[in-house]
Amino acid sequence: MGPHPERLFPPEPGLRKVARELYEAVATLPLISPHGHVDANVLARDEQFPDPAALLVTPDHYVTRLLHAQGVRLEDLGVRDVGTGEPPAPEPRHIWRLLCRYWPTFRATSMRLWLEHELAALFGIEEPLSEQTADQTYDQIAEHLRRPEMRPRALFQRFGLEVLATTDSPLDDLPAHRALRRDPTWDGRVVPTFRPDQLIEAHGIARWNELLDRLATVSRIDTGSYRGYISALESRRETFMELGATATDHGHLSVEAEAMSESEVSRLYDRLRLGPRQRGDEDAFRSHMLMEMARMSADDGLVMQLHPGVWRNHDTAAFARFGPDIGADFPVATGFTAPLQRLLDRFGSHPGFRVVAFTVDETVYSRELAPMASYYPSLWLGAPWWFLDAPAAMGRFWSAITETAGFSKLAGFVDDTRAYCSIPARHDVARRTYCSFLARLVGEHRLDRSEATEVAADFAYHSPLAAFRLGIQS
Amino acid sequence: MGPHPERLFPPEPGLRKVARELYEAVATLPLISPHGHVDANVLARDEQFPDPAALLVTPDHYVTRLLHAQGVRLEDLGVRDVGTGEPPAPEPRHIWRLLCRYWPTFRATSMRLWLEHELAALFGIEEPLSEQTADQTYDQIAEHLRRPEMRPRALFQRFGLEVLATTDSPLDDLPAHRALRRDPTWDGRVVPTFRPDQLIEAHGIARWNELLDRLATVSRIDTGSYRGYISALESRRETFMELGATATDHGHLSVEAEAMSESEVSRLYDRLRLGPRQRGDEDAFRSHMLMEMARMSADDGLVMQLHPGVWRNHDTAAFARFGPDIGADFPVATGFTAPLQRLLDRFGSHPGFRVVAFTVDETVYSRELAPMASYYPSLWLGAPWWFLDAPAAMGRFWSAITETAGFSKLAGFVDDTRAYCSIPARHDVARRTYCSFLARLVGEHRLDRSEATEVAADFAYHSPLAAFRLGIQS
Amino acid sequence: MGPHPERLFPPEPGLRKVARELYEAVATLPLISPHGHVDANVLARDEQFPDPAALLVTPDHYVTRLLHAQGVRLEDLGVRDVGTGEPPAPEPRHIWRLLCRYWPTFRATSMRLWLEHELAALFGIEEPLSEQTADQTYDQIAEHLRRPEMRPRALFQRFGLEVLATTDSPLDDLPAHRALRRDPTWDGRVVPTFRPDQLIEAHGIARWNELLDRLATVSRIDTGSYRGYISALESRRETFMELGATATDHGHLSVEAEAMSESEVSRLYDRLRLGPRQRGDEDAFRSHMLMEMARMSADDGLVMQLHPGVWRNHDTAAFARFGPDIGADFPVATGFTAPLQRLLDRFGSHPGFRVVAFTVDETVYSRELAPMASYYPSLWLGAPWWFLDAPAAMGRFWSAITETAGFSKLAGFVDDTRAYCSIPARHDVARRTYCSFLARLVGEHRLDRSEATEVAADFAYHSPLAAFRLGIQS
Repeated sequence: MGPHPERLFPPEPGLRKVARELYEAVATLPLISPHGHVDANVLARDEQFPDPAALLVTPDHYVTRLLHAQGVRLEDLGVRDVGTGEPPAPEPRHIWRLLCRYWPTFRATSMRLWLEHELAALFGIEEPLSEQTADQTYDQIAEHLRRPEMRPRALFQRFGLEVLATTDSPLDDLPAHRALRRDPTWDGRVVPTFRPDQLIEAHGIARWNELLDRLATVSRIDTGSYRGYISALESRRETFMELGATATDHGHLSVEAEAMSESEVSRLYDRLRLGPRQRGDEDAFRSHMLMEMARMSADDGLVMQLHPGVWRNHDTAAFARFGPDIGADFPVATGFTAPLQRLLDRFGSHPGFRVVAFTVDETVYSRELAPMASYYPSLWLGAPWWFLDAPAAMGRFWSAITETAGFSKLAGFVDDTRAYCSIPARHDVARRTYCSFLARLVGEHRLDRSEATEVAADFAYHSPLAAFRLGIQS
Repeated sequence: MGPHPERLFPPEPGLRKVARELYEAVATLPLISPHGHVDANVLARDEQFPDPAALLVTPDHYVTRLLHAQGVRLEDLGVRDVGTGEPPAPEPRHIWRLLCRYWPTFRATSMRLWLEHELAALFGIEEPLSEQTADQTYDQIAEHLRRPEMRPRALFQRFGLEVLATTDSPLDDLPAHRALRRDPTWDGRVVPTFRPDQLIEAHGIARWNELLDRLATVSRIDTGSYRGYISALESRRETFMELGATATDHGHLSVEAEAMSESEVSRLYDRLRLGPRQRGDEDAFRSHMLMEMARMSADDGLVMQLHPGVWRNHDTAAFARFGPDIGADFPVATGFTAPLQRLLDRFGSHPGFRVVAFTVDETVYSRELAPMASYYPSLWLGAPWWFLDAPAAMGRFWSAITETAGFSKLAGFVDDTRAYCSIPARHDVARRTYCSFLARLVGEHRLDRSEATEVAADFAYHSPLAAFRLGIQS
Repeated sequence: MGPHPERLFPPEPGLRKVARELYEAVATLPLISPHGHVDANVLARDEQFPDPAALLVTPDHYVTRLLHAQGVRLEDLGVRDVGTGEPPAPEPRHIWRLLCRYWPTFRATSMRLWLEHELAALFGIEEPLSEQTADQTYDQIAEHLRRPEMRPRALFQRFGLEVLATTDSPLDDLPAHRALRRDPTWDGRVVPTFRPDQLIEAHGIARWNELLDRLATVSRIDTGSYRGYISALESRRETFMELGATATDHGHLSVEAEAMSESEVSRLYDRLRLGPRQRGDEDAFRSHMLMEMARMSADDGLVMQLHPGVWRNHDTAAFARFGPDIGADFPVATGFTAPLQRLLDRFGSHPGFRVVAFTVDETVYSRELAPMASYYPSLWLGAPWWFLDAPAAMGRFWSAITETAGFSKLAGFVDDTRAYCSIPARHDVARRTYCSFLARLVGEHRLDRSEATEVAADFAYHSPLAAFRLGIQS
């Protein structure tokens, strides 16, 4: 039993054979993870994972959101109340039982594919989860977690991870990354990613000033003026690069980017810090700063990742109680052609600049992203991601993108996960899926076998190294 | 001849076998029709259908629109001029001949699938329609219509209809529903649905006052104030529930919902009745009332159906002459994430509240509906509907929704028809189509056979009963 | 070697057999090219094509854009600098080498399908292009180009072109078209298309006056007043019709169409010519003129082609240097239901009027175009086009359109190319693709074989003749 060895391959025998052979050639290539949310402390500390729920349920909003949709309360899944007066957390075993009880609701989802892979590969669990076997599977996982080969660093080797990028605030001095670099017993490659969203979205004067004061502290540069603020950000980027970073990451509702003059933006910066603010100030500043971030990327070579179009913290009551990242962020219609016009006009053909665009609005694939990526040399396309990190969704992406843009501007797969143990499963689902896509192109005589083999290896391994400029180890 | 017994199944032999077996297990399950537009009088009166055109062409805008697109005038299809000076209606036989003449233009459409099913199953007509055989098929249908087994109540049994929901104005005192309930010779389940659109869209002071006066009359509650208006609506909901209603239905251009304070909305209500109105008053009122409808649903448990995004009566000349529902309603781009934020923030996790969202804009499937339905317990997803009630469109829906949200939040199939005899055909097309979809998941080892069988039966039967709270007969 | 004879057919053996048989019945039907951008001078002059790069690379932005996306500079591909001080053009052989070098980046694209077809059919090149063989293939093509059978008129016969429509400004007096008509040695059918965009988009007073003065000159009608301007346009349409035109073509960002009163628009016209202009004047004029163009089409019978939703000249630096049509036009979200409401309300059922709508925003297929085309007799649907002229994209179009609207309102394939030699390849890819689509409908028992054969021939040949009113030769 367990996950079928030919899962996700086309059911038609001829195509299946091609897909399987393509897959066999890429299945064991090292994993490149250029965009994710694992905490570097997991590897720096290398501690045993506490329990099955804390490993596989509570911190993974891909999983908790599906349970919440069934009426399960987030607190009953161990999600921590960020306010005061936190009630006692539920027993991990009870959390696990909830997952088992609602297991049928995961049918057809990516989450099921990933969890089944993890359960089988890491814990030897090959039967479907169920209420009847909940305690037994809980104990089996808990037993495995006590083994040394289940420690994070051991898993790093076992997973075949060649690079793991984390996502980090410029305010973070990256002690875990520093510790890993210093540690003579560790030679894995873990790199930070510069994500300055909170230093660009000027929400609230008090909070904004507090953040900019912290930026001054960590950078040792006075942020009292716009010039100082820019220098501080540039300095933080340098620090990140010294610790191996090759990319930045930007998740705003819109990617509208329009530069202001130095004097205008200086006055705006002062207003944002001191008040009184004017209507639209925050948007104008973000728009200016996205252009400025592109300018910095053109200068220092950090690859700029853009992923607009998500309404964050839609469930405000849950946000007040549990904070962000609980699965209540939802996409909205978005665009790239119009809002990015000025940015691409200025940097789209700049040899030092590279931007990787992600979307959770599929309508832009054939309409905006493929046409623009097949014209502007600086624009690469991120993999279908988040809600679209799923077999049929990936097929739609490849189908919509490649007829216009080919394969050469695809940045490869990103797992985008905070669930460390799901990384190999996520890469495996992707590899199976695009090998199936390529098998059909072979079956239609649009690619020959050797071309398909090359494309599969590129997407799995060479493209993300190239796209994220990870080829040369710092 | 006639419709092929394996129509709509995948052509690949392995998948076809699985699809056929899944279909065989659900083909004869009772029909649940929780959302439709059949007139309850059809069953209350149980009269013989007058003629083939009046049964299959004239009242079905799914059919007349396709003929109109070929240049056939609506009046030549028997569509009644709502003004004065109505010209004599065409001979039913001439209408039928037009359908036969243009039969090739129905190729690949759902309408052809439905009509072929009806013609074969009810009238023994297994050859394609054609001008040559038009009179012969007309006579053959006319002959069948005279038989007692072709009366509406007999067909209700033969169709295996377990529940049939109609769609009704709060101004309707539901005499047909009352008559059916009183009739000792009738034990079918026909329930009304509360559709208050016209009482929420305040178009024109005179018309608005007339409607609210009628609301006062039917509810016996003074609607002179906002409070009275709300009480009258609540009272009508109660009456509908006494007659078996479990749902409301709301079709506005936007689902923007934002509550005003009691005092604000009272003043607005007075302005709408007495004037002078201000710009935006009608939109603000509708937006407030959608939130209020959600509040009532949370209180009384009626399931709220939302289907925004349709520009009604696009062809204003035809509207002036023939009225609404002639096939000239067309979708526009729409959204759910932003406009429903306040409503879901307030009621999305409320245990009493349930909303079923329908769309004719496919872009929201993976972008908005699946992400939100897999977080908010109150949100269920309606089947692809209207223009999207078709095999490939259903496949796109299932594919885009289920990888993110699984199957558990799908409200099952709705036929949404005013063509009574098309109900079994529509359910049959849907059952064949999702069994084919499930067969592919089985073929890709994403579901095992027993799971697929369960999902198929859920979607056909158990899910609509559960989603529309039809499980307990009132 | 060379392109596989069964390329683009379904890999499943049963479907492939049906697709191949359908294809064989349409493969050699004459080519109808009702919408394209070949220069009529190519045929009027009938000169030898200068070299492989000038034939297959430099003038074809479908090709140059993909090379530009790899960082190749447009000037290195021979794209002419429109300013002064033009640097010496690169050697054609060097341009060809660049195409060969980047050939792998064309994988999975339409451009590869077309080029492979051309290379094999016209030049006997059946191996993939590569840097190693670049000089050899260059020489082989160059040698063929010197042969008389490679002259444009000889190819017109060989391609089986029955009609070729060009795209022309009303300011063009069409000397090439006149010359072809006069030429006793030529009997091919080459017709102009009336594309008045630049005379409707009133950009800049000086440029606008210059264009309208040129309109006066070519039409010999004073354009000093709105009335004269309208008469001049009507007169130009007549001239185009005398030279065989059956259609107009309109590519604006929006298809919003709303008429003003005669007096309003006269004042607006004067403001646009003399100034000072008011904010929104240009948009209001275009909107009025689109309605006026529909009015003229209803009067004179020219088929109106609409293709909105493209942001032109996105890369302004490249536009300043190289002009338009370099591949830097990108789609944006667009709509038809709302902006076309007034136009279709007035002319949608007018017997003399016909409009063919094209889109590069796939979201409107099932949401707006199919619903409206299956109601309004005047509305036909253009083929998936430009970025969407590709096998999978065509499949999405057919799938999304035909379940709602059938096949009868499809205007057939258009090649939309300025690359003369790509015409047969583009039609061939389309024919293979829709035969594969139809084969699946046959496999699902939604069409029988004879119906599929009829639909295939319609789409290839009869539908474009009918849709573009090309049936009767002028």
